[in-house]
Amino acid sequence: MTELQIATANDLGQRLHAMGIAARMASQVLSAATAEVKDHALHEAAASIRASTKAILSANRGDLEAAGQAGATAAFLDRVRLDETRLEGVAKALEDVAAQPDPVGEIMSEWTRPNGLKIQRVRVPIGVVGIIYEARPNVTADAGAICLKSGNAAILRGGSESFGSSLALADCLRTGLRAAGLPQAAIQLVPTRDREAVGLMLAMTEFIDVIVPRGGKSLIERVMREARIPVIAHLEGLCHSYVHAAADPQMARKVVLNAKMRRPGVCGATETLLVDRAAALTHLPLILHDLFRSGCEVRGDEDVQRFDPRVVPATDADWSTEYLDAILSVKLVDGIDQAIAHINRYGSHHTDAIVTGDAAAAERFFDEVDSAIVLHNASTQFADGGEFGFGAEIGISTGRLPPRGPVGAEQLTSYKYVVRGVSQIRP
Amino acid sequence: MTELQIATANDLGQRLHAMGIAARMASQVLSAATAEVKDHALHEAAASIRASTKAILSANRGDLEAAGQAGATAAFLDRVRLDETRLEGVAKALEDVAAQPDPVGEIMSEWTRPNGLKIQRVRVPIGVVGIIYEARPNVTADAGAICLKSGNAAILRGGSESFGSSLALADCLRTGLRAAGLPQAAIQLVPTRDREAVGLMLAMTEFIDVIVPRGGKSLIERVMREARIPVIAHLEGLCHSYVHAAADPQMARKVVLNAKMRRPGVCGATETLLVDRAAALTHLPLILHDLFRSGCEVRGDEDVQRFDPRVVPATDADWSTEYLDAILSVKLVDGIDQAIAHINRYGSHHTDAIVTGDAAAAERFFDEVDSAIVLHNASTQFADGGEFGFGAEIGISTGRLPPRGPVGAEQLTSYKYVVRGVSQIRP
Repeated sequence: MTELQIATANDLGQRLHAMGIAARMASQVLSAATAEVKDHALHEAAASIRASTKAILSANRGDLEAAGQAGATAAFLDRVRLDETRLEGVAKALEDVAAQPDPVGEIMSEWTRPNGLKIQRVRVPIGVVGIIYEARPNVTADAGAICLKSGNAAILRGGSESFGSSLALADCLRTGLRAAGLPQAAIQLVPTRDREAVGLMLAMTEFIDVIVPRGGKSLIERVMREARIPVIAHLEGLCHSYVHAAADPQMARKVVLNAKMRRPGVCGATETLLVDRAAALTHLPLILHDLFRSGCEVRGDEDVQRFDPRVVPATDADWSTEYLDAILSVKLVDGIDQAIAHINRYGSHHTDAIVTGDAAAAERFFDEVDSAIVLHNASTQFADGGEFGFGAEIGISTGRLPPRGPVGAEQLTSYKYVVRGVSQIRP
Repeated sequence: MTELQIATANDLGQRLHAMGIAARMASQVLSAATAEVKDHALHEAAASIRASTKAILSANRGDLEAAGQAGATAAFLDRVRLDETRLEGVAKALEDVAAQPDPVGEIMSEWTRPNGLKIQRVRVPIGVVGIIYEARPNVTADAGAICLKSGNAAILRGGSESFGSSLALADCLRTGLRAAGLPQAAIQLVPTRDREAVGLMLAMTEFIDVIVPRGGKSLIERVMREARIPVIAHLEGLCHSYVHAAADPQMARKVVLNAKMRRPGVCGATETLLVDRAAALTHLPLILHDLFRSGCEVRGDEDVQRFDPRVVPATDADWSTEYLDAILSVKLVDGIDQAIAHINRYGSHHTDAIVTGDAAAAERFFDEVDSAIVLHNASTQFADGGEFGFGAEIGISTGRLPPRGPVGAEQLTSYKYVVRGVSQIRP
């Protein structure tokens, strides 16, 4: 099918099928594209976003008006909203991705067999990545850029409420691809608000190699339930900070306050604080003082309630709740065993931290807490691809299989084995 | 639930649920087990197999009789059959797995951030692996051993026709676990012939982290279609050997004959031979001569038929058929572009080889053939975890996401990020 045929196909299934074929073909070109060509496309796309500021913001105003009329909340409208500063951030992010090293072609390991066969494991793109996301239109540019950098074709399905903004941003990405001589189908936006598109994408086993959902828990759960394709999912960030008996009190208060309150709504924000009973008298009052002063609601078990009348009683549900807000559940524990058991039971295997001066305790925590990221004497808010040095990220995978943790361009790759012989045959 | 409760639960769903809980708990012990302890269990299991030869072979005779009465084919009965030699091979395989390096705990990479955070990516087990397989009872031991080596708990669902043999082998594995002080639930065999168990396992999202099906295409397809859990699947090995114009004729005939006829039924056997038109006159007669002499059926396009009256006409279906037999489809191509296009279109992205004296052609083949394993001047039959140096393998993954290619103990692992700070907070 030509691009014209894709655009005019009247059946949504047909259109997506045609996009799938085009993506697969584009992915073959992309997998062979040099770093220079891909980075050139990203720079040109950034320039195009800057040059198209008026058009993008105008499309965004259209989205905001429609969403407002449909009764969207202020928080939702804020996620849809673009302005000049945010748009410059979007353009800058593309340049940041371009500045990262190209993961494709890296020789991950190599060895020679006794029979003389030389084997290399070489990093290659996955193929075609499907991204399904919600209100934030910047994901269109971020996700498209990360896929391009990693040599993958992208099929993007943005939220219908920011459809106009996403279309305008996708135009800029295409301008970049054109300038670099790359196929337009390297980054395709599903050209409809029709919600049926999500279900259809989840069944495109032939054309999409992996699905990355980004958004609220209900979207992620739906994708995990329905997808017939592997999913890289960030389900939940129910992160813990654990103040061990041997923690320095001043370090504990500083790290815990940042872990919760720097930005309470990010996935790496601490949702539950565990404090060793032996450290409660010395450490907890300082921590509670800081939290209340910064406007945090604290929900505690009975032991914690004794420390401050402002502590609200915690229910069982609190230990399983990702607040994404200025709320913290706090519990006293009888030492590291109980802390680790609590985290492995109630946590989401995302990010958990211990504060302690006892190196052996930290090592036990590292070994036994079954989470993608475990930290010692640092804020859980470092759970972020950028903070890890990955450049941009497309999310933090809470699955157990790789890629686990922050997913940047390198994590959207696979590998192949290249074997060089001199006429070896197998006995 | 206790082991007794598991054994006596009368509802299959309840029993599997209890097995899942036990496996998850065992996986926590396993992930912390040292290499010495795991290897000790493997050696003791091998010893137990040798000591239990009579009992295992007796159970196997029971399986064979029942399968024979049910009308199983000779080929099927051969897959079920164990004898002293095969059983010694099963025991030896456990010792081979024990002799491999322990993948768990390896620091895969480490770096320090500008803020001083020290980040390590550390290899960890996945958790609980579900293996669903068919007639060959040796998989019970092989799969159990690879999972144990990689620190994963295993839930094994063997074919009902070799159920008695698998039970006897699982007993030996448990003897090994007990001797090493590891939980019995580290390797569990689903204790029923009931076929419903497969469907139930595929939905155990809470307790099984990845499913590995081993068997015929219909089993693999069913698992891929129904599983609500990530799958590591070996779907098909439609492998190609491509004789390039610059191939040495003697090397080509030697490599091609081995690639097809060493063992025509293995997944790495070549199913289609592509020969450059420019090399047909010089190379093809030698190759065909060897193939016919070794009893191979050759199906060729019209060009190939001209070379020998014994060549059977190939139909379109032949290019998409994994024969797993002494049959080879042969096609002339107009050079490397056409060869690569054919392989990417008809192949199964498993293993493909080029024979050529032209290094640049080999590099193009490596870059553009989208398969897990690409070889230059070597037989496709090297597609095997053992031949790669991985020790035993649990299969060859034809998916695009990692693990791709041969799956040994290392490929059944994941990783976590360990972050060491000195009270860093995120600005």
